[in-house]
Amino acid sequence: MAKRQTPEHDESSAEYQRGMAEIRKQLGPMADNYIRRIKSLAPEFAWVNVTFPFAELYPRDVIDLKTRELCTVAALTVQGFSQPELKLHINAALRCGNSRGEVAEIITQMIAYCGFPAATNALMTMKEVFDEIDAQSRPGKSKPKKRKIAAKERRT
Amino acid sequence: MAKRQTPEHDESSAEYQRGMAEIRKQLGPMADNYIRRIKSLAPEFAWVNVTFPFAELYPRDVIDLKTRELCTVAALTVQGFSQPELKLHINAALRCGNSRGEVAEIITQMIAYCGFPAATNALMTMKEVFDEIDAQSRPGKSKPKKRKIAAKERRT
Amino acid sequence: MAKRQTPEHDESSAEYQRGMAEIRKQLGPMADNYIRRIKSLAPEFAWVNVTFPFAELYPRDVIDLKTRELCTVAALTVQGFSQPELKLHINAALRCGNSRGEVAEIITQMIAYCGFPAATNALMTMKEVFDEIDAQSRPGKSKPKKRKIAAKERRT
Amino acid sequence: MAKRQTPEHDESSAEYQRGMAEIRKQLGPMADNYIRRIKSLAPEFAWVNVTFPFAELYPRDVIDLKTRELCTVAALTVQGFSQPELKLHINAALRCGNSRGEVAEIITQMIAYCGFPAATNALMTMKEVFDEIDAQSRPGKSKPKKRKIAAKERRT
Amino acid sequence: MAKRQTPEHDESSAEYQRGMAEIRKQLGPMADNYIRRIKSLAPEFAWVNVTFPFAELYPRDVIDLKTRELCTVAALTVQGFSQPELKLHINAALRCGNSRGEVAEIITQMIAYCGFPAATNALMTMKEVFDEIDAQSRPGKSKPKKRKIAAKERRT
Amino acid sequence: MAKRQTPEHDESSAEYQRGMAEIRKQLGPMADNYIRRIKSLAPEFAWVNVTFPFAELYPRDVIDLKTRELCTVAALTVQGFSQPELKLHINAALRCGNSRGEVAEIITQMIAYCGFPAATNALMTMKEVFDEIDAQSRPGKSKPKKRKIAAKERRT
Repeated sequence: MAKRQTPEHDESSAEYQRGMAEIRKQLGPMADNYIRRIKSLAPEFAWVNVTFPFAELYPRDVIDLKTRELCTVAALTVQGFSQPELKLHINAALRCGNSRGEVAEIITQMIAYCGFPAATNALMTMKEVFDEIDAQSRPGKSKPKKRKIAAKERRT
Repeated sequence: MAKRQTPEHDESSAEYQRGMAEIRKQLGPMADNYIRRIKSLAPEFAWVNVTFPFAELYPRDVIDLKTRELCTVAALTVQGFSQPELKLHINAALRCGNSRGEVAEIITQMIAYCGFPAATNALMTMKEVFDEIDAQSRPGKSKPKKRKIAAKERRT
Repeated sequence: MAKRQTPEHDESSAEYQRGMAEIRKQLGPMADNYIRRIKSLAPEFAWVNVTFPFAELYPRDVIDLKTRELCTVAALTVQGFSQPELKLHINAALRCGNSRGEVAEIITQMIAYCGFPAATNALMTMKEVFDEIDAQSRPGKSKPKKRKIAAKERRT
Repeated sequence: MAKRQTPEHDESSAEYQRGMAEIRKQLGPMADNYIRRIKSLAPEFAWVNVTFPFAELYPRDVIDLKTRELCTVAALTVQGFSQPELKLHINAALRCGNSRGEVAEIITQMIAYCGFPAATNALMTMKEVFDEIDAQSRPGKSKPKKRKIAAKERRT
Repeated sequence: MAKRQTPEHDESSAEYQRGMAEIRKQLGPMADNYIRRIKSLAPEFAWVNVTFPFAELYPRDVIDLKTRELCTVAALTVQGFSQPELKLHINAALRCGNSRGEVAEIITQMIAYCGFPAATNALMTMKEVFDEIDAQSRPGKSKPKKRKIAAKERRT
Repeated sequence: MAKRQTPEHDESSAEYQRGMAEIRKQLGPMADNYIRRIKSLAPEFAWVNVTFPFAELYPRDVIDLKTRELCTVAALTVQGFSQPELKLHINAALRCGNSRGEVAEIITQMIAYCGFPAATNALMTMKEVFDEIDAQSRPGKSKPKKRKIAAKERRT
């Protein structure tokens, strides 16, 4: 088989920058760390993560971000095993205009499509996200808590 | 073990009637046939199908029906094997105010969460639904086409 | 779209009380805490959890509880990701008359239907349940151990 | 890497014969055809199919066959995509002493663990099995119907 | 929310052309039709399908194509529901240098990781692919058979 | 139903010894502990674990071990929930001649077939394996680290 030509990547390209901007909009301050961590393990994985869903899929204006994120929460709920990704997207769903009640409601709706085991997994992940947000917003606790969360994130 | 007491069901109850009304709103004219078919196989399954998602979950006003149905399409897409149920809910999504473009868009978004195999399955199911709707709306063809679709429905 | 009518819930109803009685029969002393925890996160989720599987499905006398629980253990085993729910139902399976050997046997049978990864996950969850039961039954240790288990339960 | 030693197979061994006897007990007259068909595609697959679940797992007397088969129906139901295997095991469940009502009941119970899409798939597969059995038992129709079913089996 | 900027696509770009070349190498003569069909349903889906796995992932020279395709066959086997995609990739696996025996062997190996239901689904899909290839290579039959296969492809 | 005859096991048999030899080749020094732990929970599970995949499937010379293990890593990646088994097989993949880059590459390829949630789960599991190997190879740390890993293994 002939030598194959690995595509080159340019992080200063409009495509990559648009992807990073979109990730920051959704994930907030943890966005850059998240991608850096993945890049240290597998640069190609990180490149695809930035350019494919975030530079390509999410910026399209056919569906608004609030609805897109609720759909993603629904999808990750029924998978049952996507807890780390679900954490990111429950955060993103709240950041994009969904209320806590709407997140809880869509997880509850999913009982009908995935049963209780997967839906309960999602409910407990939702609780973790809400608890972390509450811990961060408590006065005088935000700095150390932030670090603890980052450590936890890495672990899951 | 003591004799267990099987709960009784009353199809004239407000709960059951609310569920049937909700199913008709979502599935349209095929709703009653769908439930009748399930009831002929397993009456308990049919009862739960009417009363739990449709009388209980969907009528809640926390999220509007249009968004709920798009979330369900997203969820069924990532499962990969839920083609018959996905057909019903793509129909319901259109009936509740989503455009064809929005349905195609959310299936496309799901590539990021379930990969191409499950997303392509959903895309082909979407095509089936669109084709059936188009066939039914063609002049002079609606009666025989309807019957063919019903037969197909039963088969999947 | 017209304003939707959210169904009202009455926890003193026969339906809800029958569900709670069934949960207590299956999960034992942890039942009330389990539902309370879910209710604090999403009241609708908790209501459905009590009324749908426990007030509606489990009390039916077509299949005895011992067999029902073994089937549930089998089902949760093949899912692979349902470890917290599987813990509850391995406990319930033992409480409803299954021996430890029968639980281990049905998990082993499932290798044929889900392969080793999911079956091994279930075997390790089974070990956790057995270890917790053994820890609780050791003389002079039941009180503090109980608390530790509850904390762990919350975490998964 | 050193040359690896592929294990030899002896279909006249006690192990293989015990497996075939068990398959015949569960699947009835279609058992030999089923294994022959697999063997023509992949002899190793067929050997493992006979010797691992049927010669090794099922003959153990820890759980009776009636319960084992009901557990398998539950497990295949929640998987959602195992329709051909589920057909075999609904047949086996009936053959091993389960009533149609018990099969319908356990599929219904599974709604709580896998949601409606997978459970409805299973219900429709159950209907196919019941219909085929009814068609075969009708007077004057058993011979041609039998052939038609075999053809269908091959197709799924 | 501010108006979002949908990314523009250029099918004459090096990226898109590299993707199409890669698809043709893997899928052979059916490649262009496959992408055209998807594009007619959802242009964004088709664009991502060409540019992300085929222009970006597959051309990298870290792992040779023969091994990549065998890994994909393994992965689609354990999913259980990815039969249409598995058909494409069994074809691709053969085209990239794997023998029929190697494809059957890796599906057989997967029994250990996904159990018999998913592995048997894959085995039957493998049989379909082999049968179609054999039908096409029979003298005097290639033209009509080709058309029939294309129709079938569209259906799954 | 007649009394069933539970098959007898002989760990000194050629079959069992071939299986154990294969496990040791793949898992290295942790192999014996792994099987012993499973045997203490469910002897039948352990017997099947040794004899079916390792004595029967893996020693066959149709595909070399390096490729087999990469396929297994691909398969466990798409499952999303098989993290403990994936850890074992990433270790085995490295031990059988795959580089770290090849493991990362195949996980990245799987994004196309399972999406980011499952692939990211696998990437994080890969990181754990690499970190544990690095910790063990640091001078003066190998002995205590080894023990810590064993404890962790037991926990997952």
